[in-house]
Amino acid sequence: MSPASVRAGNLIRGWMEDAGLRTWIDQMGNVHGRVDGINASSKAILIGSHLDTVVDAGIFDGSLGVVSAISALKVLNARGKLGNLLRPVEVIAFSDEEGVRFQSTFLGSAAVAGILPASALQFSDKSGVTVQGALKENSIQISEENLHNLKYDRDSVWGYVEVHIEQGPVLEWRGLPLGVVKGIAGQTRMKVTVRGSQGHAGTVPMSMRQDPMSAAAELIVLLESLCKRPEDFLSFDGHCKDSTVQSLSTSLVCTVGEISSWPSASNVIPGQVVFTVDIRAIDDMGREAVIYELSNRMYQICDRRSVSCIIERKHDAGAVMCDDELRRQLKFAADSALKRMSDNQFLDEVPVLMSGAGHDAMAISHLTKVGMIFVRCRGGVSHSPEEHVLDDDVWAAGLSVLAFLETHM
Amino acid sequence: MSPASVRAGNLIRGWMEDAGLRTWIDQMGNVHGRVDGINASSKAILIGSHLDTVVDAGIFDGSLGVVSAISALKVLNARGKLGNLLRPVEVIAFSDEEGVRFQSTFLGSAAVAGILPASALQFSDKSGVTVQGALKENSIQISEENLHNLKYDRDSVWGYVEVHIEQGPVLEWRGLPLGVVKGIAGQTRMKVTVRGSQGHAGTVPMSMRQDPMSAAAELIVLLESLCKRPEDFLSFDGHCKDSTVQSLSTSLVCTVGEISSWPSASNVIPGQVVFTVDIRAIDDMGREAVIYELSNRMYQICDRRSVSCIIERKHDAGAVMCDDELRRQLKFAADSALKRMSDNQFLDEVPVLMSGAGHDAMAISHLTKVGMIFVRCRGGVSHSPEEHVLDDDVWAAGLSVLAFLETHM
Repeated sequence: MSPASVRAGNLIRGWMEDAGLRTWIDQMGNVHGRVDGINASSKAILIGSHLDTVVDAGIFDGSLGVVSAISALKVLNARGKLGNLLRPVEVIAFSDEEGVRFQSTFLGSAAVAGILPASALQFSDKSGVTVQGALKENSIQISEENLHNLKYDRDSVWGYVEVHIEQGPVLEWRGLPLGVVKGIAGQTRMKVTVRGSQGHAGTVPMSMRQDPMSAAAELIVLLESLCKRPEDFLSFDGHCKDSTVQSLSTSLVCTVGEISSWPSASNVIPGQVVFTVDIRAIDDMGREAVIYELSNRMYQICDRRSVSCIIERKHDAGAVMCDDELRRQLKFAADSALKRMSDNQFLDEVPVLMSGAGHDAMAISHLTKVGMIFVRCRGGVSHSPEEHVLDDDVWAAGLSVLAFLETHM
Repeated sequence: MSPASVRAGNLIRGWMEDAGLRTWIDQMGNVHGRVDGINASSKAILIGSHLDTVVDAGIFDGSLGVVSAISALKVLNARGKLGNLLRPVEVIAFSDEEGVRFQSTFLGSAAVAGILPASALQFSDKSGVTVQGALKENSIQISEENLHNLKYDRDSVWGYVEVHIEQGPVLEWRGLPLGVVKGIAGQTRMKVTVRGSQGHAGTVPMSMRQDPMSAAAELIVLLESLCKRPEDFLSFDGHCKDSTVQSLSTSLVCTVGEISSWPSASNVIPGQVVFTVDIRAIDDMGREAVIYELSNRMYQICDRRSVSCIIERKHDAGAVMCDDELRRQLKFAADSALKRMSDNQFLDEVPVLMSGAGHDAMAISHLTKVGMIFVRCRGGVSHSPEEHVLDDDVWAAGLSVLAFLETHM
């Protein structure tokens, strides 16, 4: 919601109009472009992604989904076929998905889905500017009343499609440009605080230490072991079904991204070490089983070491499964796009992946069924400056949206 | 070297004069108080410690050594016995031991020992004020030439005694007020940088990660295991002698005090984790053997995990052994003090400890033989605000210096 994002929104709006779409910007700053097709009152297909991004995430995070949808519609427009669409198609460029400025994700898409609480308008950034204030700076007036009006009517929407870079290494590793998403993983964020006995690094014998740093290190090693091989830690009958453990083995990811010690001096045994834990899995029951087992074992380790251990759950989000029928349509579209690009020489099927990252589709799943296509990104992983998408893969993304729209003609 | 330290120095100087000592403040801000005894030209006994302290170290860090020496001399003065001392006794309150302001330890004592390089006068604090400038603010003019003149003549000094709080939990745990120091541990400070592959916490499968956080955790667990049980890791014939391993088992301490990750976000697998390692042992060869073994195993772990590992040695200081004869004298003095306080009911012998912390005695060991007495501190460990010394133990410290001086009459 910065001047740069307003410029980006206006640019996108121009491209939408160029593609033959009717456009408007709503009171959360989302940019919409719509074509009615043969029946303006039918349920609409929404295709969207976000325009904002995070530092170092690369230029394709979010924007690729918007651009590939506009490109596909522009092709249809050039061929004079926009009017053949069986139902309205609406492209939405969401204004704030990442939550970088206001520490709250999916602001734009949550408003459209009708799940953004009115209080969110008063969320403020580091300098005290609220969401409402930031919008006002861009000449957008939003109030609690008209926030409510942004919500789409459930009966007016057929489904939601999102194209997004994978932000992971799987497609690159498998040598495939596109994948179809089975679902978006549920997530738990925790904060672990380990408290021990602060001391002078030279004077406290090893046997008399209650060192929270060594304890934290042991906890982090445990976390990694458990998440790499959950089948070795979880008992099938006690915690969860065989199928849950199987699903965990392929989808569970656990990360410690932040760690700090206090007082943080090289010659002082810390009194306290704090670290974050991020756990994601496609199976919500499985994720709970992992957290239960992890917490128990963490407390045991801390007890044995005579340090205290506080595990706080800071955030929980359930998994979102993509719609089966929509997934089949998107898989067919992606397969067709790749066949078209390779003169039918492309033989490998488009794989079905889990999404470990959150997407606007999570918010929109409260409104309608969702489906997603992943596009391979190079440089292995996201959130690194090296990340980029090959021209051919951008092309494949646009073609797959085109193929999807052609099945709705 | 702040206004507060000047006030403390003037206060101490007053107490010294009150105890019958001739006093002066030298050009490093050290406060001296001297009595000649029966032969002003004999080699002098130096008794000292420092006046500055670190945040949270408690009020007895350093100052106890100065105060107990002055108290003992004041008792002799009151009894009219100062003149009976067989040799001159000089109490020195060193000005800057901790290195808090100028990031360089032992400024005061190193000047007296003649090991402070002239360049140290240009060390500057965070606001750019140099040591020379800070002294000038207190009306003390020091130049490279007169720094050289601060050095004591080796032939004018008999030995150096320092009383200091233990800053560790051993005396408290053993229920004893005093200990005698065998030596001051040598120390190596290292910085370990682990670099892996930065990634999105949700999208990189566990099996494809090169996570420097998990690697760092495994390295820290290894460090602790090795330092708790060096005998399990070091081969006697390969690295070191049986006696070295035995000495390590009782003196080796290893600490990770600082750790940080980059980019430090809870939803990002870090690209880099950096932590400090502080290793201390009374046996220099043993310390080298530990560092050799530790480094090898660290590199192996990083290789196995496909992360890179850079181990930098930032600081090395050899161990300093206390003089055998001086240690016997101080042990006798401490035993007598405790017997006197308990009407000869005190049965346990004063124990001989290692010092894991650095002290002015390390600098002065370059000038003359050194000996140290440790005083029990409560609250377990130093560098914590809970630390304090019982009145009885302050009394015991003063009495043991008195007993020591009485053996030199």
